[in-house]
Amino acid sequence: MSVPALLALNAAEITEFLNEVFPGAMDAMVIEDVQPNAARVRMLYAPNRLRPGGTISGPSLMALADTAMWVALLGMIGRVPLSVTSHLDIDFLRKPAPADVIGHARLLKLGKRLAVGDVLMYSDTEDVPCARSSVTYAIPRNMAG
Amino acid sequence: MSVPALLALNAAEITEFLNEVFPGAMDAMVIEDVQPNAARVRMLYAPNRLRPGGTISGPSLMALADTAMWVALLGMIGRVPLSVTSHLDIDFLRKPAPADVIGHARLLKLGKRLAVGDVLMYSDTEDVPCARSSVTYAIPRNMAG
Amino acid sequence: MSVPALLALNAAEITEFLNEVFPGAMDAMVIEDVQPNAARVRMLYAPNRLRPGGTISGPSLMALADTAMWVALLGMIGRVPLSVTSHLDIDFLRKPAPADVIGHARLLKLGKRLAVGDVLMYSDTEDVPCARSSVTYAIPRNMAG
Amino acid sequence: MSVPALLALNAAEITEFLNEVFPGAMDAMVIEDVQPNAARVRMLYAPNRLRPGGTISGPSLMALADTAMWVALLGMIGRVPLSVTSHLDIDFLRKPAPADVIGHARLLKLGKRLAVGDVLMYSDTEDVPCARSSVTYAIPRNMAG
Repeated sequence: MSVPALLALNAAEITEFLNEVFPGAMDAMVIEDVQPNAARVRMLYAPNRLRPGGTISGPSLMALADTAMWVALLGMIGRVPLSVTSHLDIDFLRKPAPADVIGHARLLKLGKRLAVGDVLMYSDTEDVPCARSSVTYAIPRNMAG
Repeated sequence: MSVPALLALNAAEITEFLNEVFPGAMDAMVIEDVQPNAARVRMLYAPNRLRPGGTISGPSLMALADTAMWVALLGMIGRVPLSVTSHLDIDFLRKPAPADVIGHARLLKLGKRLAVGDVLMYSDTEDVPCARSSVTYAIPRNMAG
Repeated sequence: MSVPALLALNAAEITEFLNEVFPGAMDAMVIEDVQPNAARVRMLYAPNRLRPGGTISGPSLMALADTAMWVALLGMIGRVPLSVTSHLDIDFLRKPAPADVIGHARLLKLGKRLAVGDVLMYSDTEDVPCARSSVTYAIPRNMAG
Repeated sequence: MSVPALLALNAAEITEFLNEVFPGAMDAMVIEDVQPNAARVRMLYAPNRLRPGGTISGPSLMALADTAMWVALLGMIGRVPLSVTSHLDIDFLRKPAPADVIGHARLLKLGKRLAVGDVLMYSDTEDVPCARSSVTYAIPRNMAG
């Protein structure tokens, strides 16, 4: 990719930044890994995420997708608070178990104005994805490479 | 449309049903209108929906889109608890104000297995949409017309 | 909307412009109407658009969605050749008849950098939509309001 | 995955089948590889795929995404002619060069009624993707595992 291979921020720095600009955002999210153009984020299980049938709610999975992509993006562009999601789509593939869900995000494009990536989500106990998501972030001018 | 023009359920009946199968789902949602292949749902403002900058969070808007489509669908097919969202996409168009958001859902296809529709969302105080969403529901066999 | 209500270009001017910058693009497309933030485009039936079963091919419907949105956008921003589609999604709702297909585009957001809208498509002989599409265009800097 | 690991059809058999049910579909497409839940398809360069600026047209990339997913699906479920695309979305990431484009499809879910996967597309001469697509296929009843 034509993006710098070095990370602008590591997992601890991203967690600190997100808690700063968006208090509460990371209460149930743990950044497990950040690599160039990639991130892995764990959403901790909590009973209030359940839908009837014992499955994790759709909006919770969307929040995980959104967060995992944001983490991958911040790893590349650093402390840029103003990026906003402009598009998100999600395919619900299987009912996730009542357990943690892990989101694996990869950044496919990091442009001057838009960043695009996708996220596969897995229940902690399963090896097939429960959901797939694509996310587009709009990056404020003069802030990204 | 090749679907019955009569409603299977009205707004009060859908609210009752959703509270029954999905306790808490309607705590912040008010069904304002149900018509054949259409529904209007209001998401009540609450400070915990805010993102930094005073805007309503993305997952809250996705929950509204999902709920508004589900209401439109239940109006047509009645008390079918097992329908599940299979796909949702959302375009965030403008920052919504810190206020109620109203979702206008229309059902574009009601097939035997899939229902597809879209939702425009407006801040209570604005006349341009803050978000656009498309939603696909998978309907259990033998339950829909 | 916070966009100018006057059209920058009318249907004839847009057709001329598209033929100029994209020879052949309008061979099978007729712009039937352009309004502020809206356009109606007819895709003429041709046997080579057919898929087995006598239905119009998916890529043809995607081309119609893309064109109809571009027309609606050009009506607002004028002769800007460099806009490019950044995202397109499409739900195939019903098999379209072997006939012309009409796309009704509406522009939901016209920002400085992104334009977002959706398109409903109808077979000429039917009153329910055969497809629904959302399209995002990236607008070159300094060219849009 | 809970799907059979053996292929129902290999590349040559899928090509033969597609030419049979959809004459012309494979004129510009070459199936390079089929694996369980995956396929690689090459779209041959032809000048009529160009858009102004010398880039491959959007509808051509969409056709490649659709075909690559169909190939991956047929590899798993065999000679089922009636599957239809129900949803496709595509992110255009970079202008593809005027060259062959290769689509890498992976099947993320193969259910009884829906198959969902995604496709990354690369210009033959480049190592970053030019487009990302997600595709849902509706499978006729009684035909898939």
